[in-house]
Amino acid sequence: MRINGREANERRPMKLTVDINKYAEGSVYIEVGDTKVMCTATVEEKVPMFMKGQGKGWVTAEYSMLPRATQTRNQRESARGKLTGRTMEIQRLIGRALRSVVDLQALGERSITIDCDVLQADGGTRTTSITGAFVALAIAVNKLALKHSLPVFPITDYLASVSVGVVGQQMLLDLNYEEDSKAKVDMNVVMTGQSQFVEVQGTGEEKPFSRQELDGLLALAEKGIQEMIQQQREVLGPIALKIRGGETGANV
Amino acid sequence: MRINGREANERRPMKLTVDINKYAEGSVYIEVGDTKVMCTATVEEKVPMFMKGQGKGWVTAEYSMLPRATQTRNQRESARGKLTGRTMEIQRLIGRALRSVVDLQALGERSITIDCDVLQADGGTRTTSITGAFVALAIAVNKLALKHSLPVFPITDYLASVSVGVVGQQMLLDLNYEEDSKAKVDMNVVMTGQSQFVEVQGTGEEKPFSRQELDGLLALAEKGIQEMIQQQREVLGPIALKIRGGETGANV
Amino acid sequence: MRINGREANERRPMKLTVDINKYAEGSVYIEVGDTKVMCTATVEEKVPMFMKGQGKGWVTAEYSMLPRATQTRNQRESARGKLTGRTMEIQRLIGRALRSVVDLQALGERSITIDCDVLQADGGTRTTSITGAFVALAIAVNKLALKHSLPVFPITDYLASVSVGVVGQQMLLDLNYEEDSKAKVDMNVVMTGQSQFVEVQGTGEEKPFSRQELDGLLALAEKGIQEMIQQQREVLGPIALKIRGGETGANV
Amino acid sequence: MRINGREANERRPMKLTVDINKYAEGSVYIEVGDTKVMCTATVEEKVPMFMKGQGKGWVTAEYSMLPRATQTRNQRESARGKLTGRTMEIQRLIGRALRSVVDLQALGERSITIDCDVLQADGGTRTTSITGAFVALAIAVNKLALKHSLPVFPITDYLASVSVGVVGQQMLLDLNYEEDSKAKVDMNVVMTGQSQFVEVQGTGEEKPFSRQELDGLLALAEKGIQEMIQQQREVLGPIALKIRGGETGANV
Amino acid sequence: MRINGREANERRPMKLTVDINKYAEGSVYIEVGDTKVMCTATVEEKVPMFMKGQGKGWVTAEYSMLPRATQTRNQRESARGKLTGRTMEIQRLIGRALRSVVDLQALGERSITIDCDVLQADGGTRTTSITGAFVALAIAVNKLALKHSLPVFPITDYLASVSVGVVGQQMLLDLNYEEDSKAKVDMNVVMTGQSQFVEVQGTGEEKPFSRQELDGLLALAEKGIQEMIQQQREVLGPIALKIRGGETGANV
Amino acid sequence: MRINGREANERRPMKLTVDINKYAEGSVYIEVGDTKVMCTATVEEKVPMFMKGQGKGWVTAEYSMLPRATQTRNQRESARGKLTGRTMEIQRLIGRALRSVVDLQALGERSITIDCDVLQADGGTRTTSITGAFVALAIAVNKLALKHSLPVFPITDYLASVSVGVVGQQMLLDLNYEEDSKAKVDMNVVMTGQSQFVEVQGTGEEKPFSRQELDGLLALAEKGIQEMIQQQREVLGPIALKIRGGETGANV
Repeated sequence: MRINGREANERRPMKLTVDINKYAEGSVYIEVGDTKVMCTATVEEKVPMFMKGQGKGWVTAEYSMLPRATQTRNQRESARGKLTGRTMEIQRLIGRALRSVVDLQALGERSITIDCDVLQADGGTRTTSITGAFVALAIAVNKLALKHSLPVFPITDYLASVSVGVVGQQMLLDLNYEEDSKAKVDMNVVMTGQSQFVEVQGTGEEKPFSRQELDGLLALAEKGIQEMIQQQREVLGPIALKIRGGETGANV
Repeated sequence: MRINGREANERRPMKLTVDINKYAEGSVYIEVGDTKVMCTATVEEKVPMFMKGQGKGWVTAEYSMLPRATQTRNQRESARGKLTGRTMEIQRLIGRALRSVVDLQALGERSITIDCDVLQADGGTRTTSITGAFVALAIAVNKLALKHSLPVFPITDYLASVSVGVVGQQMLLDLNYEEDSKAKVDMNVVMTGQSQFVEVQGTGEEKPFSRQELDGLLALAEKGIQEMIQQQREVLGPIALKIRGGETGANV
Repeated sequence: MRINGREANERRPMKLTVDINKYAEGSVYIEVGDTKVMCTATVEEKVPMFMKGQGKGWVTAEYSMLPRATQTRNQRESARGKLTGRTMEIQRLIGRALRSVVDLQALGERSITIDCDVLQADGGTRTTSITGAFVALAIAVNKLALKHSLPVFPITDYLASVSVGVVGQQMLLDLNYEEDSKAKVDMNVVMTGQSQFVEVQGTGEEKPFSRQELDGLLALAEKGIQEMIQQQREVLGPIALKIRGGETGANV
Repeated sequence: MRINGREANERRPMKLTVDINKYAEGSVYIEVGDTKVMCTATVEEKVPMFMKGQGKGWVTAEYSMLPRATQTRNQRESARGKLTGRTMEIQRLIGRALRSVVDLQALGERSITIDCDVLQADGGTRTTSITGAFVALAIAVNKLALKHSLPVFPITDYLASVSVGVVGQQMLLDLNYEEDSKAKVDMNVVMTGQSQFVEVQGTGEEKPFSRQELDGLLALAEKGIQEMIQQQREVLGPIALKIRGGETGANV
Repeated sequence: MRINGREANERRPMKLTVDINKYAEGSVYIEVGDTKVMCTATVEEKVPMFMKGQGKGWVTAEYSMLPRATQTRNQRESARGKLTGRTMEIQRLIGRALRSVVDLQALGERSITIDCDVLQADGGTRTTSITGAFVALAIAVNKLALKHSLPVFPITDYLASVSVGVVGQQMLLDLNYEEDSKAKVDMNVVMTGQSQFVEVQGTGEEKPFSRQELDGLLALAEKGIQEMIQQQREVLGPIALKIRGGETGANV
Repeated sequence: MRINGREANERRPMKLTVDINKYAEGSVYIEVGDTKVMCTATVEEKVPMFMKGQGKGWVTAEYSMLPRATQTRNQRESARGKLTGRTMEIQRLIGRALRSVVDLQALGERSITIDCDVLQADGGTRTTSITGAFVALAIAVNKLALKHSLPVFPITDYLASVSVGVVGQQMLLDLNYEEDSKAKVDMNVVMTGQSQFVEVQGTGEEKPFSRQELDGLLALAEKGIQEMIQQQREVLGPIALKIRGGETGANV
């Protein structure tokens, strides 16, 4: 039996509260068990230097944890004067994952920045950030599409993410911090509504893992992600209908 | 008439929600109008280098705004690689103000760090941070006092803060962002439950101000602060009774 | 009796030596007791990005202490790679105070930077910097007004600053380092020639302070500042006549 | 047909030249096509702070590209003053992968740093670094084992890495830069001599990918990695015999 | 007798291998004894800000040592977040020396950056870098001259460098690391093919030195440098013929 | 005829004012023409990490220019967040030069830091800093020798420095800024009272220089330096008698 009495293939309860910031173009407060992340989407009518003049948009993400999001207090990265490798790795992952379901051409030459700030952490902060970031993004894109009468809705599919791992002899879905710190194998999976992979990042933390373990973990992840996407659909309501079912524009 | 129909001497509604973080020794979510700050208190059994071996404790604060706490998105200080002067000035102020009502001797050789993270900003973030930080501090100190059976309760008085200012010809209490950006004179006041001053910081933003204006603003501030302290008392409940009425230990 | 036999309401001797730098548009060497600061004003025909195209000028300040300005040697901020919070706070204060007596519209789209470098420190370096900076600024503005035949002299009033504090039971004017380190209450006041307040920054270093103490300290500060402004008048000579008596342009 | 006439499942020629640095405890110059990396292993009789007193060793890696390793010159990270996110991500990956085949207990309280410096880049610099780093590590560990008569040889299995990807409709092994920049799916795989996974990092660069693509790519990677490990065996000679076949100590 | 049986006026063997980088416009791998440096020249059709609009080109250099180029591992400057004073001093020297034999007018408004990366260090890394950098520069300039049909070949003379020093009572040519660390006087000399001085940097490491010692060291350096230039001529082949014999354009 | 009517071999007037800082163990204000530098010596009873436990002392220097020491204002290095290469090069030079006349053994395990802050610059700031730094050092060392009854006076010889250069066809002594910026050859020389060289740094700024020019410049430099040392002797008075005539302790 797992901590909190969960089954091996059972997620923690997830709650999405939208429009929690009065300024942001899209925002959501996502809770997955005791992991709590605030996601805000900012739309700006400009793109980074390297994208200029291409008629295409850009989507990027930033990630941070409040100092006391964790058991013991962490020094602020602003006080250290630089981002840790972990933070950089995570925000690159979030941005890359989001871009895989955005038709940058359809977005036009503007950029959307998703800020994921972890208020409380209990495992799975990067996967929770992705799941929440998608919702904030969809809300912001919807406003944009309405305001500028975009001919095509720029989001091409749903996107959610979950962690899976091997703890002891068991394959588990949606690890909390305590399980994660005991995991021998740790895998973060990002998938679309069409059950296509966007990112698969598996690591043998303590020892290498077999093909059989890989297969088992991917199946668990797919189950969890499809359930999450169902919740995203519900909270997005009418916006959900505009998201194309994965038929990405060929020229994206 | 002010924005939102407030009187000149009327505060915005303030709400204090305690124990909102599962790890921190003390925590509070403070809302003053649309300004929303999360305050957490972390207790550590060590003091900074310059305080070592004196048998006294230390209280310090850090302050930060989430990138989209404001109308337009601000670059993260962690990405810039350094704190702005504004942030440094504010966190020095918060720490200094808190220490003025703590008996550091009674605290023992340990330190408390209060993190004030602004989730949404609408004027008065530094004063709101101080008012919230005091509550988080009091909760953390109470746990400490119980755990270590401290002979004296180390908090010597209440502490709250409010901004006042001159907008047009009017002296106003508790400015929101719109009022603040039009203010000719801007003053932040920190006071104790005994109506003693801890900090008075008045600035003639556009033009110098008179002694008469100074006196009027200080009176407004006192009114606002005493109302806030009344709310702190209510939310602290039994802890409130342990706070000494300002008789700071002579040797602090 | 105070150190050096001063009365409680007696300033340290102040000496202003102008034009001590062959390159700067305005310069002064100010000595207040053993506190010695070199102030230079640099005029540049450009304004910071955020001021561009408004037809208005800008005045800013930078502050630094030489490593051996103090009893024990301090590490250079250039070697540390960043400014301390204290330095940032002080240079923001100096710039803000100077701008309160400058008609930025009359200055035209150009900027003046005042560098305040403390060669020797014995308390009151920020207030001494403000008093000296005003003189360097006035000299530079005068040259500018002559050179460009400015229709209105852009300085609207005098400006000087002093520290006051409570040491033991006494309220003292113009604290030196030794007095400052024993002060229970410490206040820096910036005033104009018309006895209007520009900045009031009072801090209960060890304990909160009363309204009565605040009033006493403000009176002491006014006395000291008006004496200082008299000395500024003398050293500025004919330039002094051009400074308007505080009738700031309404549109500044 | 691929660039250079390679088959879809054909690697680029790989060459390993050992002992190319007169100071390092282990060193190898690895060439995979036009990608050229110098790997040196440094043994130090100390461990990082967080590992102290556990009686275990540590293995870490650093990665860098010379400015002109690429088509156009890149600014040095030392001149920029900070590491890019890409560099941090890669060096964390290399270190983590190496540690998965090292018995840190058997290593004793000492640390090994592998420096991977890319002299010329033509795709696959991170996978080439891992393959080369393993050889440098093995040589250094062998010297250590002889010198200190370690009871168990601390390397538990072979380790190599290759990239695979989907370009057009084809699944390709060991992408060079030109292929990599056209790839729709890009995957880096790290495996052991026992064909166990250590890292699987697959990314849908342009669009999500299917389970079938994932399976095809993993098979290609396994083929390539086992061929590489055969070359490692040859160049390591007698050291190869000491490497255990994957039976990691249970308590590592 | 010296280490390795060299005479006092005998250089270490020098080997120049050109075109070792597939991307750089010019490149050379230079070995002087056990000191090994990779030099690459990058041509860019732009000049730094301060050179813009003058119709002249620019030549600059960057220098770095790999972490394990030395006996014990050095921390990377990219990880430290800043360049050491030693690195800055060396790269300023290399750039300045190269510019002394380049007709910047003839180069046209473009810049050449020479990267000198020390793969292995055994004394004389800065002098070896200069000698190698000149060859990489000449190759790159030759390509440029052909491509743009420059009317004048922009290199005006040869350039090489060597270190000399006093060890014990002896004056020695081309010190290796062991000799260098025992030297009482250490001098780096840069000369042209016409035996003119470009840089003379002599330092009394342990004690001041006499005029007689200075003269002896300069003679040794001249001998070594002219031998090196002979090797440069051989490796440059036909390019050598285009280098003017030191008649620098008057207007350079 | 030179600017200001000087002869080719004539120095600018030099003025040394000692004990100008109330805290520093040694201090001097040195003026060479319009170049003005404040030098302070700080003695600390500790040595840097790399010198610990050797029973020897350390002497080091830091150099900085005030922002408006020059014609146009320079950005502060503290605001830039790092030292320029020029500053690092100069402060390394000053420290190295001073150490060449200090018997570190005789100094005992303590360190002296000389801060050279340029208040106004008109060419020759590094040579003027060295000449002034020596005087501040001598005063501080004398106090130390008296206080600790050092058996041997730790300064072994005088030290001063001057710049020489070729401007047009003329060789000139002690260049001011205007001459320096036109110089074809620029040389900084540091010598002892015994006319021994400590540093010779000659650079062909625009074109290489001949042996004959080198000889002429060295002779000019010697003349200037010996005149400067005569002035140092006068200002040091009785301390001058304690400085040994260059017989450095053999074991230094």
